[in-house]
Amino acid sequence: MSEIRQDQATKRWVIMATERGKRPRDLVATVSTTEPEPEHSPDCPFCPGNESKTPPEVLAYREGGGPADSPGWQVRVVPNAFPALRPEGEVTVREPYWFTSVTGVGVHEVIIESPVHNANPATMEVEQFTRILAAAGNRFNVLRQDRRLSYIAFFRNHGRPAGSSLTHPHTQIIATPIAPTNVRQEIEEARRHYDDRMHCVYCETLQRESDAAERIVLETDSYFVFEPFASRWPFETWIIPKQHAAVFTTGDASQVEPLAHALWTTLNALYHALGDPAYNLVLHEAPLRDSCEDYYHWHIEILPRLATAAGFELGTGIWINTMLPEHSAEYLRDFVSA
Amino acid sequence: MSEIRQDQATKRWVIMATERGKRPRDLVATVSTTEPEPEHSPDCPFCPGNESKTPPEVLAYREGGGPADSPGWQVRVVPNAFPALRPEGEVTVREPYWFTSVTGVGVHEVIIESPVHNANPATMEVEQFTRILAAAGNRFNVLRQDRRLSYIAFFRNHGRPAGSSLTHPHTQIIATPIAPTNVRQEIEEARRHYDDRMHCVYCETLQRESDAAERIVLETDSYFVFEPFASRWPFETWIIPKQHAAVFTTGDASQVEPLAHALWTTLNALYHALGDPAYNLVLHEAPLRDSCEDYYHWHIEILPRLATAAGFELGTGIWINTMLPEHSAEYLRDFVSA
Repeated sequence: MSEIRQDQATKRWVIMATERGKRPRDLVATVSTTEPEPEHSPDCPFCPGNESKTPPEVLAYREGGGPADSPGWQVRVVPNAFPALRPEGEVTVREPYWFTSVTGVGVHEVIIESPVHNANPATMEVEQFTRILAAAGNRFNVLRQDRRLSYIAFFRNHGRPAGSSLTHPHTQIIATPIAPTNVRQEIEEARRHYDDRMHCVYCETLQRESDAAERIVLETDSYFVFEPFASRWPFETWIIPKQHAAVFTTGDASQVEPLAHALWTTLNALYHALGDPAYNLVLHEAPLRDSCEDYYHWHIEILPRLATAAGFELGTGIWINTMLPEHSAEYLRDFVSA
Repeated sequence: MSEIRQDQATKRWVIMATERGKRPRDLVATVSTTEPEPEHSPDCPFCPGNESKTPPEVLAYREGGGPADSPGWQVRVVPNAFPALRPEGEVTVREPYWFTSVTGVGVHEVIIESPVHNANPATMEVEQFTRILAAAGNRFNVLRQDRRLSYIAFFRNHGRPAGSSLTHPHTQIIATPIAPTNVRQEIEEARRHYDDRMHCVYCETLQRESDAAERIVLETDSYFVFEPFASRWPFETWIIPKQHAAVFTTGDASQVEPLAHALWTTLNALYHALGDPAYNLVLHEAPLRDSCEDYYHWHIEILPRLATAAGFELGTGIWINTMLPEHSAEYLRDFVSA
């Protein structure tokens, strides 16, 4: 008998149909038959020496310095050459009632995570993670000043099944002039919980999961990593700060390093447990200038693409997960390096 | 400059980023390099002669009759051998507050659409479509009597990118004891619209799209087929009855035939326009015993899987569509058979 679980924060329902499921080992990616990627690819726009193939950089870290748009960088941030949104112009609403549309003003940037073409974040040095997150925090701080923007989406697509078309490791930022529906719904549910209970639903999640213990992947001084009770996919993993905050802020390295450590350890464990699975990594935080400090709580969701969302999921919003998060968490814990 | 559109019914936002897009011809599926499937496959549990490989049938149409679970059927409905939900037992809530879960009571059935292993609904005779929809309507009428159930999901996954693992053409029914979040949200938005405007938002959609004309794919006496203003994917296509009704009802063949005709024509056009694309087809209707007759309006959504939902879509619920629905509708109209 399967069970149907409800997530407290979003009210999302998930059918736990474990009888349809596979064991963790069966989900391990089979070795790709395509040629391994080289350390440097002459045709890759993200590789050193090809800086002119991207729009001019907006940020880069070069040990010892050097001119912009030249090699020698460790992390480089550039506008997306094929952006979904463009930064020029004002945000205007075309029709206030029917056939409503808003001008596509926004920002679409790429954080090139390494000069090495075939680098994998799961096997990078943790110091490189700190640089990547520092670059992200820097861009967040700049974009937050833009009054036209309502939301900053920060996400990483890893592998073709996760929608990634370029091998060279990168993370994306899309800042939109509208607040996303999903985030609005999360915040609405969190506000209701706060009004009813006088505390943050994510803080209660932390406490409940800490007490239950069986879905914990990793706990550090600052972060809690676990597989949610109502995980949508096998090995869905959340990284949540123990300190309540509605937005991800990075004032200095002391704030970035603990997250870099937790994130690196988690991706490294998934890499070794599942054989470099495809995944999407998404930051969830409050929209800009949205005063929900008391009841919203930023976090990172990692969604390995080990199953395909089909008609049932797309139509109903109900997911079918073939593995209990207790089991995937137990399996994953064995791959967490000390 | 792209634009961001809002769907009136769900408030869903979609970025229309046509500069990233492809032309319709570029989306045509390349010919598969795998062997073509035979008309009959000895190992397929849905093929005639293998009736014992499925659970006993719950419904079948046999011209001239014949015993249950024997060959000679035109359409056959069986319980899913690996069901997400099972029909035995009572619906009970395990924890009313935190770690909430409901017993996995429900129904998971498969409508085997043809005895021919490699049949494609897009190229079947329209009479076969009428049989399939009559079988679906029959099962809906039976399942609606079960007081434990709250919703009947009816969907078709076509092709591996759409999550289908079996070639033999089939549609699925999953009846759940919970009302899906997506449907609840649709109904909530539809109710608000009704309260504000005194009419159904879907009826207004029909009227507005009929007036605008540019996104129409097909219009029959009873059905309107169009690409929504805020389509999430290229060639997203909706089939909506002109007559307002919250649920899909099939009292007799006269009700089924017009839908069979509209659906067949639409799938046939997509098949020829895009070279047998992978897609999900989902019925949207009101939950059982939910009195939303005035403001909800059943319809079918067809979602060709011509792009991958990645981190941005999964995290924000904002979709990026690379083709304007005006363009895909214009392209598709050329493939609509008279």
